[in-house]
Amino acid sequence: MNLNELGSPSGGPTRCAIGLDIGGTKIAGGVVTEAGETTQVLRIPTPREGGADAMLQALMKVIDRLRDRTPGIEAIGVGAAGMVEWPTGLIRCAPNNAYDELPLQDLLTERTGLPITVENDANAAAWAEWRFGQGANYRNGLLLTIGTGIGGGIILNDQLYRGDVGIGSEVGHIVINPEHGSLCGCGVTGCLEAQASGTALGRMGREAAAADPTGLLASLHGGPGSVTGETVFSAAEHGDPTARALFDKLGYWLGAGIASLVNIFNPEIVLIGGGLVTTRQYLFPPTQASFEQFVFAGSQRKLPLIECARLGAEAGLVGAAALALK
Amino acid sequence: MNLNELGSPSGGPTRCAIGLDIGGTKIAGGVVTEAGETTQVLRIPTPREGGADAMLQALMKVIDRLRDRTPGIEAIGVGAAGMVEWPTGLIRCAPNNAYDELPLQDLLTERTGLPITVENDANAAAWAEWRFGQGANYRNGLLLTIGTGIGGGIILNDQLYRGDVGIGSEVGHIVINPEHGSLCGCGVTGCLEAQASGTALGRMGREAAAADPTGLLASLHGGPGSVTGETVFSAAEHGDPTARALFDKLGYWLGAGIASLVNIFNPEIVLIGGGLVTTRQYLFPPTQASFEQFVFAGSQRKLPLIECARLGAEAGLVGAAALALK
Repeated sequence: MNLNELGSPSGGPTRCAIGLDIGGTKIAGGVVTEAGETTQVLRIPTPREGGADAMLQALMKVIDRLRDRTPGIEAIGVGAAGMVEWPTGLIRCAPNNAYDELPLQDLLTERTGLPITVENDANAAAWAEWRFGQGANYRNGLLLTIGTGIGGGIILNDQLYRGDVGIGSEVGHIVINPEHGSLCGCGVTGCLEAQASGTALGRMGREAAAADPTGLLASLHGGPGSVTGETVFSAAEHGDPTARALFDKLGYWLGAGIASLVNIFNPEIVLIGGGLVTTRQYLFPPTQASFEQFVFAGSQRKLPLIECARLGAEAGLVGAAALALK
Repeated sequence: MNLNELGSPSGGPTRCAIGLDIGGTKIAGGVVTEAGETTQVLRIPTPREGGADAMLQALMKVIDRLRDRTPGIEAIGVGAAGMVEWPTGLIRCAPNNAYDELPLQDLLTERTGLPITVENDANAAAWAEWRFGQGANYRNGLLLTIGTGIGGGIILNDQLYRGDVGIGSEVGHIVINPEHGSLCGCGVTGCLEAQASGTALGRMGREAAAADPTGLLASLHGGPGSVTGETVFSAAEHGDPTARALFDKLGYWLGAGIASLVNIFNPEIVLIGGGLVTTRQYLFPPTQASFEQFVFAGSQRKLPLIECARLGAEAGLVGAAALALK
């Protein structure tokens, strides 16, 4: 079906954009209408080598394929992991990708002839949740994406908070355990990402498995060294108390981090997205308890709900496209 | 001199307001012109007992005295320690004062017949610094006031950030050492105020003095139990390495807290105000070093300067008055 046949609320043709989400592991691309509907979603691995050239080639492959299939694309929005300047769309650094100082917005504008918007991936996901998802009824809120890392987007008065030049809102890198914490990929010890991400869960799982080589964690997937966050989840699903205690620990740090952010922003709602949402039955109860333990003056104000984001894995590309159509 | 004789830039009479700053120890009041000039400053002790009635009586005493001396007061601005709702001016809680749920804005409006603005004290101080002080050339910044507690005000795009209902911006209560930290007056373990305030300095000083009863800290002011933040400062001035190490520790936590806030807001400048500014020669170098250690991607972006606030002890009342005249 040609998207323009869908029609828009105003009766004219449906406006649509390509949304791209560049993560550390894969690039997702899709065509998104102004109503947030997604079609033609593609996923390819993020190039591990070849730097900016390989990345650009990969992005153009996705873009060309989507444009071939869908005429009338108006704009392209990109959500990219890392520190992205706004409104220039310069990627300052991307700890999990093979490039730095990449002027992606300029490069894609040159190659496609379309208006390009490049935004931090978690910001894009937050925008999607506030336009089309679980945040739509709230004017002020936070989205935390808990996956390999921890990203975040902040909505203030119905607008995406970007700071002065788009850098900021790095809520995964607030410092929460500097003296005794783990080393983060960003080089800092004890930031929230180092304590409460999927990477942290895998690390804690390997430590626990090494400490108990005959336990379930060690035996599930080929020895203590092979334990990942997924292994810990499997073990928790099998009722393993060690694995569940690791989720308690992860939730402890996540809840303390959310408390800090709520003390600063007093949002109406906190949404949790990202891969670890699938573990919510183990992760959310200790997160909620820790949040209530550490939030300031919790008994004297209305605390925000902590809920699951609704848009799932496509939030980033939907939000990026919505920002491009804005 | 009658303030109206000063004249305003527009040639008309100078507009002026009363500014009041309610702290845990004292109430300061003064007359402030629209240009930020202050006259007639009074200080009285904050009533320790008698709850809301005693507080209101004390405030009215200051207000009446100032109005008697200065005709033409247009409005009254109050900066109050604690969690203050905006724009209602309801003080939800004030951990260091003898009242809760005090509708101060309504009560003062009734008693004075003047327009009243009630704001969090650190927010008021931040506004003063951005209108008349060290922040005047910056559009985005933070003020931290380090004294008995830690307060903060956030300026985004030249506006005071208040969140949805004025609650938030509680930067002194971000959680930074939950597992091994000290208990804060707010009831939480390991928030920034518990780790890096004047109260924290005094507590660390007493611990250090108890551990070394013949050291300088223990002998300066009548024994280990009497050590305060001021004692630690005196000992540092005498070259005591123990006291200086305590400032290093305080700066370590303060710098880590500032790193978290800079990761979220990416401000152009961070101003430090409050009583501990007098100790800056000992406090600021370790704060700066810790900030650089813990900030995200510090080598890949322009980091904000960390500087002294300029307006000193009167920032709160000046800012409160300026907000009332706004």
